[in-house]
Amino acid sequence: MRVEQLRGGVVEAWHDVHVAVVDASGRLVARTGDPELTTFWRSAAKPFQAVPLVEDGVVDRFGLSGEELALACASHSSEAGQVSKIRELLAKIGCTERDLLCGPHPPLSERVAQDYQARGVRLTPVYSNCSGKHAGMLALARHHDWPTEFYARPEHPVQQRCLAEVSRWTEVAQAAIRTGVDGCGVVCFAVPLRNMALAYAKLGSRGQGATPIAAAMLHHPELIAGEGRPCTELMRAHPGRVIAKVGAEGVYCAALVGEGLGVALKVADGHGLASALAIAAVLEALGLRPLPSSLGARPNLNTRGEPVGELRVNGGLEE
Amino acid sequence: MRVEQLRGGVVEAWHDVHVAVVDASGRLVARTGDPELTTFWRSAAKPFQAVPLVEDGVVDRFGLSGEELALACASHSSEAGQVSKIRELLAKIGCTERDLLCGPHPPLSERVAQDYQARGVRLTPVYSNCSGKHAGMLALARHHDWPTEFYARPEHPVQQRCLAEVSRWTEVAQAAIRTGVDGCGVVCFAVPLRNMALAYAKLGSRGQGATPIAAAMLHHPELIAGEGRPCTELMRAHPGRVIAKVGAEGVYCAALVGEGLGVALKVADGHGLASALAIAAVLEALGLRPLPSSLGARPNLNTRGEPVGELRVNGGLEE
Repeated sequence: MRVEQLRGGVVEAWHDVHVAVVDASGRLVARTGDPELTTFWRSAAKPFQAVPLVEDGVVDRFGLSGEELALACASHSSEAGQVSKIRELLAKIGCTERDLLCGPHPPLSERVAQDYQARGVRLTPVYSNCSGKHAGMLALARHHDWPTEFYARPEHPVQQRCLAEVSRWTEVAQAAIRTGVDGCGVVCFAVPLRNMALAYAKLGSRGQGATPIAAAMLHHPELIAGEGRPCTELMRAHPGRVIAKVGAEGVYCAALVGEGLGVALKVADGHGLASALAIAAVLEALGLRPLPSSLGARPNLNTRGEPVGELRVNGGLEE
Repeated sequence: MRVEQLRGGVVEAWHDVHVAVVDASGRLVARTGDPELTTFWRSAAKPFQAVPLVEDGVVDRFGLSGEELALACASHSSEAGQVSKIRELLAKIGCTERDLLCGPHPPLSERVAQDYQARGVRLTPVYSNCSGKHAGMLALARHHDWPTEFYARPEHPVQQRCLAEVSRWTEVAQAAIRTGVDGCGVVCFAVPLRNMALAYAKLGSRGQGATPIAAAMLHHPELIAGEGRPCTELMRAHPGRVIAKVGAEGVYCAALVGEGLGVALKVADGHGLASALAIAAVLEALGLRPLPSSLGARPNLNTRGEPVGELRVNGGLEE
């Protein structure tokens, strides 16, 4: 599968896509490219980094809401409502913005970014798309009486707990999981696409112990990304049927709840928009129809606003 | 050849590179990937779109300076000095900014873009990185008494003249050249990399009739791109030895003047920074040393400013 950029009918650039579709038993149901490709899971690992909040009793201890769990799994758009909910979560666990170790960056939503720039909003760490995950990590540390300082370091028990959870869901031994530093400063995990897909298949299946995480994501698509962004649009278009979660550098994962399938894909060159069109095409091929129109072929406009070509998916899944 | 992005020692994303190195007789001297790959030349065609200014007598008629010729070949940074020179060129030919059909966009230089945004500079068409090319096209129209209106349309004699010149330099028949609409609204041309490289080999060789174009580019590296940008840095590091010209969507071309070689490359997925590191690596392999340090392996920093990996070239040329 390729996502192709056409100009004047000529393919001007292309983005190779590797896909694994797996059921909850780990059987490879469909693929294209290399389903065994190992790459960093990046933000698509967030639901599993949030599982300890459920499993370890953090949710009960602090009375975390479904919205707060959803934000712990999110790459949010830094919308005002999202940021204020994370501030409330921090207050609930006795922390403040100053405890967050994520770095600031312009909002992932172009609309929000332009609005904040026009209004001179100062982008502090709570505006990071990962601030919900970081607040969840602080909650985990508080619950276990682990230090809240340096929670981003690989040797900190919070990161070790996340590694164990990633290993459990992906069924990759901890020693076989290579790690790096994520965009927000915490540990990120490299695993094969097939194993990422397995984790999502299990997440989307009932009775696997992660129901509160899946339920939180399914009930709050507006918090998982934000207005107009692909994860939110895909989940809103098919309420209760799909969990979709983007990762940086061309990673996208999804769970088809009814079908019990997990999907993981990587655009080899890391192109974000290509990964969104690709996950939509894969989910459509697996029966999720219709797609939001924004995730079909996407026209390219030049600086004069003229349509000069389009970005579109070419190729499909193999059994 | 690939440009690889590493994180924690793991290749997280990669950018495939296709390269043709050709001498002025058209002999393929070195390659990697597919040297016959056909793609749009985009802004790397600008020197050849500027050749009619020399050949048709426009330079003599209007007394165009070397700086003005260089800007006609440029993807400039919208620096204040560059923009004012283009305004002077427009006045010289009896045109104004209002005659320019290029669309506005944020400056290609991040530094200039931030400065203009902070100061509220309104980005009109003269700030387009292509405004020198457009001013040159207006000069060509004025010289031939062609209409200055609609000069961007494929059927306008200006675009037909450019097509003929592209055909002459690349040695691809006009009928075999597929066209599209460029980012700035004029015609762009799809030709094989090998033929792009041939055109640059001829451009860099003496006695081929384009000496004023090559001389203008070689004498004014600061106008071809701008402060801190790769074309300018490469040409400044080796005065008189190399012509380097970026195109959009991962295209980069160069001429090694002393060696009589032309280079054309395409990063398949269109990644701009990867194309700059790749052209630097290819030129280094062909003997252009040392490289500007900014064009070697490039560290990746996360939102906390921590180094988390690097972008680097892997692989070389084949004979």
